[in-house]
Amino acid sequence: MSAITNPAQTIARKRDGEELTDAEISSFIMGLGTNAVADYQASAFLMAVYLNGMTLDETVSLTRAMLNSGIRHDLSSIPGVKVDKHSTGGVGDKVSIILAPLAAACGLKVPMMAGRGLGHSGGTIDKLESISGFLVKLTPDRFKQILSEVGCAIIGQSEQIAPADRKLYALRDVTATVESNPLIVASILSKKLAEGTDALVMDVKVGSGAFMKTKEDAKRLARDLIKVAGKMGLPCRALLTNMNQPLGCTGGNALEIAECIDLLRPAQGKRADQGCSADLKELTIQLCAHMLELGKITKTLASGRKLAHAKLVDGSAWKKFEEMVEAQGGSVDQIRHPEKLPKAPHTTTWKSPRRGYITGMNTEAIGNILVDLGAGRHRAADPIDAAVGLVFHKKLGAHVEKNDDLVTVHYSNSELLRDLEQRYLAALTIGGARKTVPQLILDQL
Amino acid sequence: MSAITNPAQTIARKRDGEELTDAEISSFIMGLGTNAVADYQASAFLMAVYLNGMTLDETVSLTRAMLNSGIRHDLSSIPGVKVDKHSTGGVGDKVSIILAPLAAACGLKVPMMAGRGLGHSGGTIDKLESISGFLVKLTPDRFKQILSEVGCAIIGQSEQIAPADRKLYALRDVTATVESNPLIVASILSKKLAEGTDALVMDVKVGSGAFMKTKEDAKRLARDLIKVAGKMGLPCRALLTNMNQPLGCTGGNALEIAECIDLLRPAQGKRADQGCSADLKELTIQLCAHMLELGKITKTLASGRKLAHAKLVDGSAWKKFEEMVEAQGGSVDQIRHPEKLPKAPHTTTWKSPRRGYITGMNTEAIGNILVDLGAGRHRAADPIDAAVGLVFHKKLGAHVEKNDDLVTVHYSNSELLRDLEQRYLAALTIGGARKTVPQLILDQL
Repeated sequence: MSAITNPAQTIARKRDGEELTDAEISSFIMGLGTNAVADYQASAFLMAVYLNGMTLDETVSLTRAMLNSGIRHDLSSIPGVKVDKHSTGGVGDKVSIILAPLAAACGLKVPMMAGRGLGHSGGTIDKLESISGFLVKLTPDRFKQILSEVGCAIIGQSEQIAPADRKLYALRDVTATVESNPLIVASILSKKLAEGTDALVMDVKVGSGAFMKTKEDAKRLARDLIKVAGKMGLPCRALLTNMNQPLGCTGGNALEIAECIDLLRPAQGKRADQGCSADLKELTIQLCAHMLELGKITKTLASGRKLAHAKLVDGSAWKKFEEMVEAQGGSVDQIRHPEKLPKAPHTTTWKSPRRGYITGMNTEAIGNILVDLGAGRHRAADPIDAAVGLVFHKKLGAHVEKNDDLVTVHYSNSELLRDLEQRYLAALTIGGARKTVPQLILDQL
Repeated sequence: MSAITNPAQTIARKRDGEELTDAEISSFIMGLGTNAVADYQASAFLMAVYLNGMTLDETVSLTRAMLNSGIRHDLSSIPGVKVDKHSTGGVGDKVSIILAPLAAACGLKVPMMAGRGLGHSGGTIDKLESISGFLVKLTPDRFKQILSEVGCAIIGQSEQIAPADRKLYALRDVTATVESNPLIVASILSKKLAEGTDALVMDVKVGSGAFMKTKEDAKRLARDLIKVAGKMGLPCRALLTNMNQPLGCTGGNALEIAECIDLLRPAQGKRADQGCSADLKELTIQLCAHMLELGKITKTLASGRKLAHAKLVDGSAWKKFEEMVEAQGGSVDQIRHPEKLPKAPHTTTWKSPRRGYITGMNTEAIGNILVDLGAGRHRAADPIDAAVGLVFHKKLGAHVEKNDDLVTVHYSNSELLRDLEQRYLAALTIGGARKTVPQLILDQL
């Protein structure tokens, strides 16, 4: 235990760009729990960190202090290597829901702690809750049991996990201090360390639908994550992946679950818009190959890709998904018959105003349209509607004729629809000439 | 009324170094009163302002918004020019208590709103409360009546005056965001505009006992004050004055009142340590001359000085002081017999460890010794002891022999005394050769 230092002094030193000691950071974060540090002091500290940054050592101290504010799962009794994947968030990013059972089918243990959607970015936990009965809150013992028996489990962040992170995250959201690398790194890694994983693959999103708008920013974050994880004894690698368009062919909770089911189920007859899911499938297999290499299941990425592909095609991943849903209390009948998932009362299509090629998608704007349809939330306390969302028919590079269907809208409230259509059309760039579609995987570190 | 803007967006724009509009600032400050802006959002905003600054226009908007958060005295029915003086605070700064009645004796109206001590810096309101019965809370009508009849009144900041400033000041104090020019300027000027003065003389302190440690910093603050006051229609001038040693010969509330009485009372027989009060007297007369010139009572500073000196010597200032104390409910008997002011149970002297000249006084350290004696407060809610304090026998430039009395300590609790003596000796520099004593008035703007 470190001596208690005066919170105002700690704030002043960070304000002045000085490097805080481990004892200062640990005392400040501990103070959040005991109320020795008030919320208004925490937010002044967050702004000082946002503007003055933190060194690697400070970020390690912050990560450790946030980890130590709660419990840490001990998964050592479960045989096998535990590897998790974490994404920085985007629109239509439902990778985890396919990847967790796929990696488990390949022989890894996947102890996944995921988040809810906030702002334009969706959340794995919200999506899974579209399945009736699915429990995202499990006791640590039940989490371990499912992990041991099934090989994967996906839960939300419980109140005992990094409570300091929960408090700081809630403050960051309303004080314009979200986009700060040391704060992002400590928030992600404290939770990943608490969940008990042995290694981590990071999917750092880049582009119009991501927090990181440029490759340089994303690379800096990825480097910081890898360095801090290394200092905390957590092997970590990172892929920089494209978020200049929604991932896959759907946005919205139940619709995304249905898309995952389509990809997981072997030979169940593909949807007409299957082509739009190609990027989702490719990214999932790539991330799985990295997890397998990191977890020493396969020796090379190529053999990992091969194994992942095989387990997807032969139905093993689907089987794991069924087992996981069942173990977590979800309706297996519903996932076997996805037409029983929540359904919006109305659908309509928005059509292309002209002939051309889709050359740009403002993905953050599309995410915000999803929020306003009811699929996401502006504030953490907002309710969501599992059924509403968008099915994308045309993504980057697609040719469109005038009046071609661009997107099918599943909605419950028609009031905003006119406005949302205008916003959707404004979010698209339709050019006269085809542009090269950006690479899905931009870099790996 | 401006449209309500999202507080997080306002914070984000200031965080990014952008210039906020008048509507954004006014909406944010209004939101403090309605709780549309939470304390933790205000403190993130304060840190962003601290680190990114504010333009002149933004500071004007902030000042106006803080002024508009409360009531504004209308003193137009009171004949005569109203001129106030405000000091940025220091150790032993009891100027206001002499200056208000002196300027009133010279023909000005002085509507003075003063503060309490916080940290190493003392407060006029605390000092006046050493006089039994003295009321620092008056209704606006009573304040105007005394101002009209006596010519001066000194009150504390009521809850109706600039409540946004009260809230922000309390937050600044615990979030390390006090020393920010736009925040200081808006805090001072919003209150001065609310009190209803026609013009303002600023005493900007510079040195080891002041917020501004260097002349450059003080000059920058003085310029900002004058510019913003000008934009708000308040004629303002500023003196930069020395705070590299305590002002006058006392520190501590009742002791400072007694020193003021000594200076105000004509020919009452001077204290032995009268020489130490010379700087206090000189500064008071200089500030009075500026007030008189600004209020058009005298045409030149020289004639203002002459008038002020005459009104001090002929007892007119003392008479005004008696009237003010009586009108504000204070004991006139006590100020006529200052031996009846609160008295500490014990005194002792701290002596020079060697022969030499006083070449340095760490005035902030001396202010903190006063706080620890009980004369000041660490936190706004701390109680203070009116009787305790220090009487300085040796100030900058003084020759001392080994074991000469340096200071007389009036105390009630002997526990800390040994430690405080060590700290006092450490706060002094005793050199072998005499150094030039720094000028009292460093600059005027």
